[in-house]
Amino acid sequence: MKFFYGPKTCALASRIALEEAGASYEPVRVDFASGEQTKPAYLAVNPKGRVPALVTDRGVLTENVAILAFVAQSHPEKKLAPLADPFAFAEMQAFNSYLASTVHVNHAHKHRGARWATEESSFLDMRRKVPETMAASFRLIETEFFRGPWVMGEAYSVADAYLFTVTRWLEGDGVDVAQFPRVADHMKRMGERPAVQAALAGE
Amino acid sequence: MKFFYGPKTCALASRIALEEAGASYEPVRVDFASGEQTKPAYLAVNPKGRVPALVTDRGVLTENVAILAFVAQSHPEKKLAPLADPFAFAEMQAFNSYLASTVHVNHAHKHRGARWATEESSFLDMRRKVPETMAASFRLIETEFFRGPWVMGEAYSVADAYLFTVTRWLEGDGVDVAQFPRVADHMKRMGERPAVQAALAGE
Repeated sequence: MKFFYGPKTCALASRIALEEAGASYEPVRVDFASGEQTKPAYLAVNPKGRVPALVTDRGVLTENVAILAFVAQSHPEKKLAPLADPFAFAEMQAFNSYLASTVHVNHAHKHRGARWATEESSFLDMRRKVPETMAASFRLIETEFFRGPWVMGEAYSVADAYLFTVTRWLEGDGVDVAQFPRVADHMKRMGERPAVQAALAGE
Repeated sequence: MKFFYGPKTCALASRIALEEAGASYEPVRVDFASGEQTKPAYLAVNPKGRVPALVTDRGVLTENVAILAFVAQSHPEKKLAPLADPFAFAEMQAFNSYLASTVHVNHAHKHRGARWATEESSFLDMRRKVPETMAASFRLIETEFFRGPWVMGEAYSVADAYLFTVTRWLEGDGVDVAQFPRVADHMKRMGERPAVQAALAGE
């Protein structure tokens, strides 16, 4: 498999999962600084012009929510998701989907305002609100969704890889993770896992 | 089960899936006009203040991406997803996640700009761009992702319920669906399904 990623992007989540699964993959760095993700060669891989993209012998998978579940389902012996329980699996998918469709979207308004608006004044306005929206999302995660010691409770899952990835954005988004002690502790423990260290070293 | 929804919201997708599955559920309408989704009674159901929310005897599920997969997995005899094939399942999840985290987010910039900005001028700027972003997303769906006759190919799946739901927003978003003939044909055929008619009548 080939795994297309950009450093410091959300692709880290899927890469951690691949490392946790012991999957064999070739990482391919997409150079966001030069806009490589919008050029024809990469659009042939992923027409959305985003990362991550996982190229397999059956085709290309995109979207963390899908790749994370795929890695877990295709390596059942690694127990990276509650695969035998549709309700518990859906709870995990709901957490991951919240990160993708709400928290990541909040974060994207810092530097990607041009996706949704045209005026420089709008971009500045969006950027100013990012600390507020990211803090609000993490307050919900801290108090409502995070079970502990891992996201879904006693069992580690691919949701932990995704939460870790997004938590790392807080500092740059002007949010002090220390106000969310359970999430901060999770970030610290995640950083000690060999799979996480391997994924980070690979960037 | 109780199913919390708002008319014309994305909750329609999950409701169609529940109807397709023949699931037994009690619909509960959340009154967005009076802001019921932000009041304590509803926040006790879903602290995110969004719909859909599916209340089961094991707890509450949120997020279409999660609920759609849950309905399919908990009614395997209805064949609403490629459950036995992790790769095909991930392709379906990738499509659904794109609708949730990109297309729905594009649409939300029409009336929900206050989620991400503060100034009225920014809201107007965002609103002006919605026809462009929605058309760009549906161009990708039409040319790259939609296989036909259903989203994932020969087999109907919960992804069809979700695409139909989002396609219905195009007219109000200033996008003529006729420029996407495969999607337009899909919308028409979806409208003929009894489960879709039941879900719409229920709103």
